[in-house]
Amino acid sequence: MTETLTDRRARLLGPNMSTFYDEPVHLVRGLGTKLWDAEGREYLDCYNNVPHVGHCHPRVVEAICAQAGTLNTHTRYLHEGILDYVEALTATVGAPFDSALMTCTGSEANDVALRMAQALTGKTGVIATDHTYHGNTTAVHQLSRTNPPPGGYATNVAFVPAPDSYRPLGGVAGMPHAHAFAAKVQEQIDALETTAHGFSTLILCPFFANEGFPDLPHGWLDPTVEVVRRAGGVIIADEVQPGFGRLGTDFWGFRKIGFTPDIITIGKPMANGHPVAAVIAPHDTMYAFRSAFRYFNTFAGNPVSCAAAMATLKVVQEEGLMENARVVGDYARAGLLDLAGRHHCIGDVRGSGLFFGAEMVMDPATKTPATAFTKRVANGMRQRGVLLNFLGIHYNVLKMRPPMVFSRQDADRMLDALDDVLRATPLEA
Amino acid sequence: MTETLTDRRARLLGPNMSTFYDEPVHLVRGLGTKLWDAEGREYLDCYNNVPHVGHCHPRVVEAICAQAGTLNTHTRYLHEGILDYVEALTATVGAPFDSALMTCTGSEANDVALRMAQALTGKTGVIATDHTYHGNTTAVHQLSRTNPPPGGYATNVAFVPAPDSYRPLGGVAGMPHAHAFAAKVQEQIDALETTAHGFSTLILCPFFANEGFPDLPHGWLDPTVEVVRRAGGVIIADEVQPGFGRLGTDFWGFRKIGFTPDIITIGKPMANGHPVAAVIAPHDTMYAFRSAFRYFNTFAGNPVSCAAAMATLKVVQEEGLMENARVVGDYARAGLLDLAGRHHCIGDVRGSGLFFGAEMVMDPATKTPATAFTKRVANGMRQRGVLLNFLGIHYNVLKMRPPMVFSRQDADRMLDALDDVLRATPLEA
Repeated sequence: MTETLTDRRARLLGPNMSTFYDEPVHLVRGLGTKLWDAEGREYLDCYNNVPHVGHCHPRVVEAICAQAGTLNTHTRYLHEGILDYVEALTATVGAPFDSALMTCTGSEANDVALRMAQALTGKTGVIATDHTYHGNTTAVHQLSRTNPPPGGYATNVAFVPAPDSYRPLGGVAGMPHAHAFAAKVQEQIDALETTAHGFSTLILCPFFANEGFPDLPHGWLDPTVEVVRRAGGVIIADEVQPGFGRLGTDFWGFRKIGFTPDIITIGKPMANGHPVAAVIAPHDTMYAFRSAFRYFNTFAGNPVSCAAAMATLKVVQEEGLMENARVVGDYARAGLLDLAGRHHCIGDVRGSGLFFGAEMVMDPATKTPATAFTKRVANGMRQRGVLLNFLGIHYNVLKMRPPMVFSRQDADRMLDALDDVLRATPLEA
Repeated sequence: MTETLTDRRARLLGPNMSTFYDEPVHLVRGLGTKLWDAEGREYLDCYNNVPHVGHCHPRVVEAICAQAGTLNTHTRYLHEGILDYVEALTATVGAPFDSALMTCTGSEANDVALRMAQALTGKTGVIATDHTYHGNTTAVHQLSRTNPPPGGYATNVAFVPAPDSYRPLGGVAGMPHAHAFAAKVQEQIDALETTAHGFSTLILCPFFANEGFPDLPHGWLDPTVEVVRRAGGVIIADEVQPGFGRLGTDFWGFRKIGFTPDIITIGKPMANGHPVAAVIAPHDTMYAFRSAFRYFNTFAGNPVSCAAAMATLKVVQEEGLMENARVVGDYARAGLLDLAGRHHCIGDVRGSGLFFGAEMVMDPATKTPATAFTKRVANGMRQRGVLLNFLGIHYNVLKMRPPMVFSRQDADRMLDALDDVLRATPLEA
């Protein structure tokens, strides 16, 4: 008897390690927006943002190979790679963000950012939305309301309702919703200020990606920013998902919604899959953190990591990928809106650039989430060779966040498959 | 005016980011045990364990290049790379360690291990030595007594005096020292058990590397293990420094000192510098952790990381590097003992395999630590093209932990330089 790959995985990695899809995909090769499984079947990747400039982009592969064969040490020696990269990175952000601290994962970046906020404010209370995910360290895991820690939440963590443009808090989308959200933040600030923790920071993804990327107008966060600033708190923008041009209109998510955070964290797409992440902050903030907390990260900012990150950034800039994200993203959303005219299960089409999707409902009038149906649609797409997934407050939002080299032809292939799946899948709970 | 590299670094990375040596080294190339700076000067690397099988080992570089050009995704798809690697890795450990969880850094591995202990025991109290370092996340940073967190230590952390074979607790080295240490652990267990945290785990490096790698006999931890087990606690062995054959006599540090931990964490040398780390545990422990804490790590266990780790493990095994560590380590220590006969500043020579060094004292009779002198010696070695550093409870232990391909000729070069530096450096406080 031969052991199946799934059984072998359960034996070696633990019996309850998650996979995507009812029938997991066994991938062996990738290039651009395409992936191939062990049987040679091709898949269109509409999901993965980690291979930001496309799977196995030759310029990134070449940069990794060249540097891995030359030198790979740590940042207690001097090396120009990290300096050149941080110079190029901070140039995309602009003042006052003139320095960066490298880590290996977005989780590590957010873990540092929380302590950076503590160093700035002298306080430890953190506010996050109740449907977010910022990573997997002990401290950062506490911010996932969707994933309660055994033993309960730490008392320094407070939650506010995740923004939902389709079912806005207070009933009216746009700025009334914005003020309702700010009021919730104010409530939690007040509650934290009555504890020994005090209020330190609001951490958020400026695109509210895991919350289902609600459609929020420019300026929507202004009332919240005012509330946080007035309380002496700082804002951490977790740009792990919206950053690096993905939204098409702006290189950073916080620019699109129109505010300036105090601390920025980045990760996944930064080096096309090489384990690289960072915290970007003003010089004084970096100094405050490094004075309060000694910090050294062996692998972070090493020459190979920086070569991979630099190559990725250059490809984004030199191959016009932000513009591609804007154009192809608009095209794909127009296609989804067209499908929505024929499939009433599509209650809302949202997104920006190459981060977009559709919220699936049982009935557009009641907006009842079609959660189980959405999962079947994702599995149906996988069966048709198109990889995407779902998220959102009700887990009923199809999530498409492909490599930034996604083309109109790719969008057409996704739309055709989706049309087919929606025809074939009964709208049942 | 041109900006110096050091000034540029302060501007971009923060004004207080640490470097090694009074005159930092600007490295541009590495191969085997050698490194070269921007002026073409060669250095002998007696310090870095991250390039475990030697800087830029061609088999590791080739594995990274080949896989980076083929596929790099995450573990929610199936891939044989992680399975083949975990199978090979756990085979080096033996029962009951049959599964592993991959992370990107040793810090992440220890952060997971603490929660794994919580999942097993239902408690959260942690004991560590008062001169250890287990990493940089918020939770793990709490274990560094040498690096106090602003706002004070968490109440679930307790410390015991770091083992010191040169100045043993209770005055008598060997098993009396072992019982004295176990009694201190018992005291802290009792103290934690009076709190709501209870006692969950003792975390330690089985080689007590950062404590100054004291010379402890096989069985030294037995009384401590008994105390921990009797209290229902578990032991985490942090093998980030001693693991992968470095100690020459055993592939793992816990085997050398002669006990079986409950959870093993690994990191730095695992993939020769590629950001890879892991937690190794029995199947039931892995299941308990994954049931209690949902955990996913985007970059961890990806195909490129596993290819790098597998190539590194194969080189260690196929090129006989553990045996090389034993032979060359013995040779180097004999050379240090010879130097000790001529230089009375060398109070003690310790280590195992290719992790060794010498404790520097003002006077062998009083054993007064020669801390400032040790730092000058490290800087003197750097000026002579030999890279090493210092650590220990009094920061007076020269630390040599070179790539595992370190040769007798390399040892001779180090010993000659050290002889020269010790002659040239006045023994002053």
